[in-house]
Amino acid sequence: MTYCVGLRLDAGLVMLADTRTNAGLDNISRFAKMSHWEAPGERALVLMSAGNLSITQGVVTRLSVACERAAAGEETESILTCPSMFRAAQLVGDAMAGEQRRYRSRLEAQGEAADATLILGGQRAGGAPRLFLVYSAGNFIEATADTPFFQIGEHKYGKPILDRVITPATPIPTALKAAFVSMDSTLRSNLSVGLPLDLAVIRAGEMRLAARRRIEADDPDFSAISTAWSEALREAFSEVPEVVLE
Amino acid sequence: MTYCVGLRLDAGLVMLADTRTNAGLDNISRFAKMSHWEAPGERALVLMSAGNLSITQGVVTRLSVACERAAAGEETESILTCPSMFRAAQLVGDAMAGEQRRYRSRLEAQGEAADATLILGGQRAGGAPRLFLVYSAGNFIEATADTPFFQIGEHKYGKPILDRVITPATPIPTALKAAFVSMDSTLRSNLSVGLPLDLAVIRAGEMRLAARRRIEADDPDFSAISTAWSEALREAFSEVPEVVLE
Repeated sequence: MTYCVGLRLDAGLVMLADTRTNAGLDNISRFAKMSHWEAPGERALVLMSAGNLSITQGVVTRLSVACERAAAGEETESILTCPSMFRAAQLVGDAMAGEQRRYRSRLEAQGEAADATLILGGQRAGGAPRLFLVYSAGNFIEATADTPFFQIGEHKYGKPILDRVITPATPIPTALKAAFVSMDSTLRSNLSVGLPLDLAVIRAGEMRLAARRRIEADDPDFSAISTAWSEALREAFSEVPEVVLE
Repeated sequence: MTYCVGLRLDAGLVMLADTRTNAGLDNISRFAKMSHWEAPGERALVLMSAGNLSITQGVVTRLSVACERAAAGEETESILTCPSMFRAAQLVGDAMAGEQRRYRSRLEAQGEAADATLILGGQRAGGAPRLFLVYSAGNFIEATADTPFFQIGEHKYGKPILDRVITPATPIPTALKAAFVSMDSTLRSNLSVGLPLDLAVIRAGEMRLAARRRIEADDPDFSAISTAWSEALREAFSEVPEVVLE
C-alpha cells in the first residue's frame, strides 16, 4: 500500500509520501512515489502516486519525456509549458489514460488491478497554488477551501487529525506538523505503509520547491514529532473524563 | 456501514456498536447491531454484527430460537447451555454457516454481498471473559493478551487510539473512554457510521450485564467525552513542536 497526503493552503502546498510498495505481503520494496518538475521562478509541480506501480511510473515517464521534448524545441505540450495548472492536470490525466489503454485489459486478464490515483500540486507564475486528485480514468477533482487536502492510498488512519486541524489559513509549519502526525498514525496502524518519507513544500508565490527532503527513520524532526505526539496524545486521553457506570 | 468494537480486559468485556445501516447511500436506516443473552450469575453473552443485515439478523434469530428451545426442555444445544465460550463461538459460527448456505449463492447471483462478521464476547461461571471474531465462513479467532480488542466494519479511523491505549490491564472506566473516543473519531470521519450507540459491559466474574445502554446524540457522558477529546486533541497538537524548514 501507500499513503500520500497533499495540503493546499493559502501559504502554499505541502506534499508528503511514504515509499513502501508491496506485491503481495512477502514482497516489500522501496520506491519513490513522489516526483517533481521545476522551472524555478516560473512554475513548480509535485506529483504523488498510489496504486499499480507500473502504471504510475509509466505516467511519470510520459510526463518527463514530454518535458524533455518541449525543452529540446519539439512541438510538444508539457506540464512545464502548458498555460495553466488545470491544463497540467489534464495532461497528467491524459498520461494516465494512455497507460490504462495500454495495460488495463492485459492486467485484468491476469487478475491484476490497474487502478491508480495521483495527487498533483503546483503553481505557475500568475496563478494560485492548486491541488488536484487524478483518477484512473484520467478525470480529476480540485481541492477547494471546503476540502483543502487530498489523500491517496491508506488514507483512513490519518484522516481524523487532518479533519480537525487543516483549513486554508493553516500556516506551513503547522501543516507540516499535521502531515507528519497524520503519517505517523498511518505508519503505526498499517504495516504496508513505511519509512522513509518524501516531503516537498512549495510556498505560495515562489514557484520553486522550498523543500524537497527524504525523511529517514532517524530524522530528528519526524522523530521529535512522533514522540511528542505520542506523549501529548496519552496526556490528552488522560485529561478526558472517565465514564463511571452506575 | 457499521462500526463495532469489543475489548477483552482482565476486568471484563466492553462492547460498543453504532446503529446505522445503509442499502446504498440514499437508504439509511437504524438497526440494532448488538444482541445479548443472559443467565444472570451463570453466563452472559453479547454479540455485535457487521455486513449483510439479513444474514446477521438470521444468525441472531437462529441463536435465540435455540435458546428458547433449550429453555423449553427440547434437546437443543444453545449458547446459554453449551459447556464453554469456545463452544458458543462454534455455535455462532454454525449459525453463520447456515445463513450463508441458505442465501449466499442467491445473493451473489443478484450481485449482492453476503459477507458478514460478528464479535462475540461473554463469560460463563468457571471460565474467563472471552472475545471472538467470527467470519463469514463460520471460522473464528479469539482475542489474546497481545491483541485484546476486535473491531468490525469501518475500523480504521478508530484504531490508532486503541493501538495506543488498550492493554489487558486497562480498567473498565478507561476502556469505556477509549471505546467512546474510538467511536467518536469514526463518527466524525465516516457518515455511514451513526448515533445512537449501543453499549454493553460485562465485569469479570459477574456473569451478567453490568450495563446495557442506548447512547443517544445528547447522552451527557458521550457528549462530554466527545467535546473534551476534541479540545484535548487540539491542545495536544499545539504542544507538538512545529517543523521549521531551513
